[in-house]
Amino acid sequence: MAQVQAQATIGDSEFDRDTAVTPRGAAEPGVYDAELSAGWTIITAVNGGYLLALVGRALAEALPHRDPITVSAHYLTSSVPGPAVIRTELVRAGNTLSTGQASLFQYDEQGREVERIRVLASYGDLAALPDDVRTTATEPVMPAFEHCLGPEMGPAPIPGSSEIVDRLALRLDPATAGWAVGAPSGKGEMRAWFGLADGRDADPFSLLLAVDALPPTAFDLGLIGWAPTVELTAHVRRFPAPGPLRVAITTRNVAGGFLEEDAEVWDSAGHLVAQSRQLARTPRA
Amino acid sequence: MAQVQAQATIGDSEFDRDTAVTPRGAAEPGVYDAELSAGWTIITAVNGGYLLALVGRALAEALPHRDPITVSAHYLTSSVPGPAVIRTELVRAGNTLSTGQASLFQYDEQGREVERIRVLASYGDLAALPDDVRTTATEPVMPAFEHCLGPEMGPAPIPGSSEIVDRLALRLDPATAGWAVGAPSGKGEMRAWFGLADGRDADPFSLLLAVDALPPTAFDLGLIGWAPTVELTAHVRRFPAPGPLRVAITTRNVAGGFLEEDAEVWDSAGHLVAQSRQLARTPRA
Repeated sequence: MAQVQAQATIGDSEFDRDTAVTPRGAAEPGVYDAELSAGWTIITAVNGGYLLALVGRALAEALPHRDPITVSAHYLTSSVPGPAVIRTELVRAGNTLSTGQASLFQYDEQGREVERIRVLASYGDLAALPDDVRTTATEPVMPAFEHCLGPEMGPAPIPGSSEIVDRLALRLDPATAGWAVGAPSGKGEMRAWFGLADGRDADPFSLLLAVDALPPTAFDLGLIGWAPTVELTAHVRRFPAPGPLRVAITTRNVAGGFLEEDAEVWDSAGHLVAQSRQLARTPRA
Repeated sequence: MAQVQAQATIGDSEFDRDTAVTPRGAAEPGVYDAELSAGWTIITAVNGGYLLALVGRALAEALPHRDPITVSAHYLTSSVPGPAVIRTELVRAGNTLSTGQASLFQYDEQGREVERIRVLASYGDLAALPDDVRTTATEPVMPAFEHCLGPEMGPAPIPGSSEIVDRLALRLDPATAGWAVGAPSGKGEMRAWFGLADGRDADPFSLLLAVDALPPTAFDLGLIGWAPTVELTAHVRRFPAPGPLRVAITTRNVAGGFLEEDAEVWDSAGHLVAQSRQLARTPRA
């Protein structure tokens, strides 16, 4: 009989362990050591959303407020699995929002620090926000979870590592999965059900992962290849309800060697819980 | 007979003079003095887009690349007309993109520096970008310039300073101007023809102004009041053609005391030249 595994919980899951940061202590305030896990790599690099979540946790430790509200990251060099250090700075502490800055560094062969990403972020208290909702955004139109496509249902379309795929419960809307069989829609859209494979519910930090964990919208335009992020800004708008998320990403402007990806993340209760936009380089097709 | 005034040009205009930065020189590399002009204030504060353009010019001086490609700003405290200092840092110099950071400070009554905004930005060379355009974005649907509404055609709807209005050639789409007569559309949209009043053509720095120079979309939702920007990220996608710009801004998600504003800027040649998203506080209506 198969062993029944307890569902992972917020604070006790692989995602939590792999985004943990360890303060260096009083001698180096605001400095945190971390280990970039090989479990969140795609093709050759550590996933950018995972990095954002990890830096986001360091800022939550460093700032007077705990919840990311708006996080802007500029990606400098490709991260690899292994040790990293995050240096944070409190920029401004306000009543309802605090602003901080963080840089994640790894080490070159001579042991010198190489900066991977730099982040500016404003943090607040999501639970303290008023309950008003006057959104005109509408939930993504996509089939039920059981009618969407998991990685076990098709050919593995991505060359290289896809370790991250094993850690996600990702089900693509078939309408945006045609690229996997050579028939991209051409619309520049990507939609998926999103969860963590071990059943851990979403929180503001896993939302930072969710906005950058789907296949690139470029794939749906027939541009299969690496679309490295230059800059990504995520807004966390609400604490997500338990249950699977839906992520819808659109690209409208492919021009000059760049494209934008706009992501919306909806929770199981029908709330728009996060929005993001990134500027990425267009894959050379 | 009225005096014929020569049209201002890029480099020789009020906008150029008011966004000029003066390097402190070899003793303080990367540090620039500036004077925030009272000419770009709205209600009580210096306009956020003007600030972004000014900081953007300092970064253009400091970085190996000249053109802003993606600029993320976190707004910390309200700026006022008067002296300011901008401290820049080269984060990474790459072949096609350089990343920099900048902070703009003003002075409190004791002469201590108070940080107003902090910016992370990646700069490049717009003229060197490839010519590919595969955009699905469509030009804003709005009436011709002469059928849109200038400030001289209606009541002055904004209490307090509106100095900036005199420096802009702004004509609102009547469909998004109902708020000025107490009849907002409720859609959360704002569209306008945009130029500088002295006829100076657009460049990447005036695009940074353009994305944050229209009335807040909150007005179109019936929420009249101050909607301070928390964070704004702008992507400059192309060097704008001469002639008036069209700016279209939409808000989809008003919730938890915040709203996002997504702006598109189109040039006279029909190109999408800039995109931006900001997170702002919802006015207390």
